[in-house]
Amino acid sequence: MVQQKATNVTWFEGIVTQNARENLLDQSGCVLWFTGLSGSGKSTLAIEVENVLYQRGHLTYVLDGDNVRHGLNKNLGFSPEDRAENIRRIGEVSRLFVDAGVIVMTAFISPYRTDRDNARALVSEGRFIEIFVDCAIEVCEERDTKGLYKRARAGEIKEFTGISAPYEPPIHPEITLNTDAQSIAESTKRVLDFLEQKNIVPAAAE
Amino acid sequence: MVQQKATNVTWFEGIVTQNARENLLDQSGCVLWFTGLSGSGKSTLAIEVENVLYQRGHLTYVLDGDNVRHGLNKNLGFSPEDRAENIRRIGEVSRLFVDAGVIVMTAFISPYRTDRDNARALVSEGRFIEIFVDCAIEVCEERDTKGLYKRARAGEIKEFTGISAPYEPPIHPEITLNTDAQSIAESTKRVLDFLEQKNIVPAAAE
Repeated sequence: MVQQKATNVTWFEGIVTQNARENLLDQSGCVLWFTGLSGSGKSTLAIEVENVLYQRGHLTYVLDGDNVRHGLNKNLGFSPEDRAENIRRIGEVSRLFVDAGVIVMTAFISPYRTDRDNARALVSEGRFIEIFVDCAIEVCEERDTKGLYKRARAGEIKEFTGISAPYEPPIHPEITLNTDAQSIAESTKRVLDFLEQKNIVPAAAE
Repeated sequence: MVQQKATNVTWFEGIVTQNARENLLDQSGCVLWFTGLSGSGKSTLAIEVENVLYQRGHLTYVLDGDNVRHGLNKNLGFSPEDRAENIRRIGEVSRLFVDAGVIVMTAFISPYRTDRDNARALVSEGRFIEIFVDCAIEVCEERDTKGLYKRARAGEIKEFTGISAPYEPPIHPEITLNTDAQSIAESTKRVLDFLEQKNIVPAAAE
């Protein structure tokens, strides 16, 4: 009896699917990939979108420098190869979260189109939502929330996106947010409206 | 107004915490780290535990060779360094899932104590549940569900755990399951009982 059961290792497989988890959570697993210059507002927006979704009972998770660079990717530096591997791993982890049914948000500059397109290719159609956080570099630099622009201008940080390294804006992002012209509340609403339109989350109760 | 808001990037930070997500899910994020020989029943048990938890409304996710080796860890081989890095990344991804409030299960041989202890150290006390899937190698080899023992005996697979590479059994695992003596149902109940005792999930309704 025990033997027989144990031999059928595939017997239970596939019962709890992505779809089953999505039913449980009343949402679709997807990745909101925020991309933009340092200081453009990626993390701020991800955190605010997360707040609103949480208040509606949704499960989200934000991947950012704090929980990825010091953990999973702590063995990566800033060479071109390591930067690509950094984004590759973030894409792969996002894929796992999407499979788990979670609305995962990534808040990384992710300046290269190829890297972002590779991340997009990991999940099925409609589950990768590229959000271009578009903000004039002058505004980002004026904010300089982490003091990084100052250090980059002083030459203390090499290959700083927008100063000494390129940023390749998305060509067909699902959403563009102009954080130098719109308020955080307006940008957040744009994202939420999109998620409702695509039936990723149900419309908010009136 | 827009400027002011955007400057306060830490304003919203930390509102949706691990604890908030756990409240939403009515469970505690934790990792069930199944370890044992090939064929011992790690995946079978993880899948069955997942089924029962799902039926009780809990969110789980299983990390296994299928979704990790071909994705996040596809750039790793089988050298000692790569094997350690394989388990390190699985531990780091588990940490992220635990932070997300998910009950994550890992089903990897993970033969080395050091690697498992490193994974344990990534999450806080009580959140790492090491489950030793203890099964006589003769039984595993008789099952040989993937035909791997046959290939290992034929010398086609080098450094195969239990045949030509060591397996270091856990010294103080939270749970030991003897899958050559207990049924899958019995083993599953052991795990569920443990999760209830530790208040990771509420007791099942009668």
